Amino acid sequence: MPHTETDFHEILINSTRLFEGKVINLRRDEVTLPNGKTGTREVVEHPGAVAVVPLTKDGKVILVRQFRHAVQQVMLEVPAGKLDPGEMPEACALRELAEETGFVATRLRKLTSMFTTPGFSNEVIHIYLAEDLVESDKEPDEDEFINSESYTPDQIAEMVAKGEICDAKSLVALYLAGIQLHD
Amino acid sequence: MPHTETDFHEILINSTRLFEGKVINLRRDEVTLPNGKTGTREVVEHPGAVAVVPLTKDGKVILVRQFRHAVQQVMLEVPAGKLDPGEMPEACALRELAEETGFVATRLRKLTSMFTTPGFSNEVIHIYLAEDLVESDKEPDEDEFINSESYTPDQIAEMVAKGEICDAKSLVALYLAGIQLHD
Repeated sequence: MPHTETDFHEILINSTRLFEGKVINLRRDEVTLPNGKTGTREVVEHPGAVAVVPLTKDGKVILVRQFRHAVQQVMLEVPAGKLDPGEMPEACALRELAEETGFVATRLRKLTSMFTTPGFSNEVIHIYLAEDLVESDKEPDEDEFINSESYTPDQIAEMVAKGEICDAKSLVALYLAGIQLHD
Repeated sequence: MPHTETDFHEILINSTRLFEGKVINLRRDEVTLPNGKTGTREVVEHPGAVAVVPLTKDGKVILVRQFRHAVQQVMLEVPAGKLDPGEMPEACALRELAEETGFVATRLRKLTSMFTTPGFSNEVIHIYLAEDLVESDKEPDEDEFINSESYTPDQIAEMVAKGEICDAKSLVALYLAGIQLHD
């Protein structure tokens, strides 16, 4: 059956704010479904984020290692972070890069923007390639427990194959940066 | 500074359950940081999910179009869905494929598992390639407002380039299925 976009739309009946947090908010919406029935939708509101693939002059990629409480693992990821209120994604990308790795980039190229989990959250992540890196004398934030480490594309492909790099934004970012991640 | 994994670990002090929902739960944890300070962590608990790249005998990929309330958009994605309690990911992949597209697969290959948003959720998504598809006579769920549509790899690459396919799981899944998504 051919579709028209209006086949799918839901009409908002009411919205209940359940939680306002430091990082996320939670609300529950009641909607009228296309068949006239009522449904509920749980929505995690997120301010949006950026991720950066920092490429050094000798062709290495800088990744960051940190403990992720939600998954109870130390993870190796591309540098990333949440947008501050009113902050432009490009400014956020440069800020997070400096805070997490100590590098300043003079060239930044947008790779894509994507939704991380459209089933339950509005989070958008903007992904950039950062080049022409210069080491700054900025100290990392005292409350960021994070190591930056640089790897060759081959090492990255191997860590992806082994599942050592295993979060959605890093996989998409590394792939779009042109790193061959599988055979 | 070289790291050891224990540099990063946080110690749980207490955990408050804030919400138990239909799809997600929310809790706030208080932790001791590596420097001895106290921090809070908001965690969205998710049951885990699967995503499937269904590849037809003539080399097309079946995608599904549906309205996503959290992002207020009609989106085109690979078939996907949440794990039922106790359900094996492979069984879930076959179930979601049948429910969303009407196809039964006789060959299923695991591509990867990844965290969608380790910064605030424990959601894991298991990604599969489904081949040797046979159309079933199963009717789609009455409460799923979803269209299945098949596309060639070239069409998919074009839709990715235009941002018409723009969610993390679909991008990773299509890439790992061997579809060339960019130049």
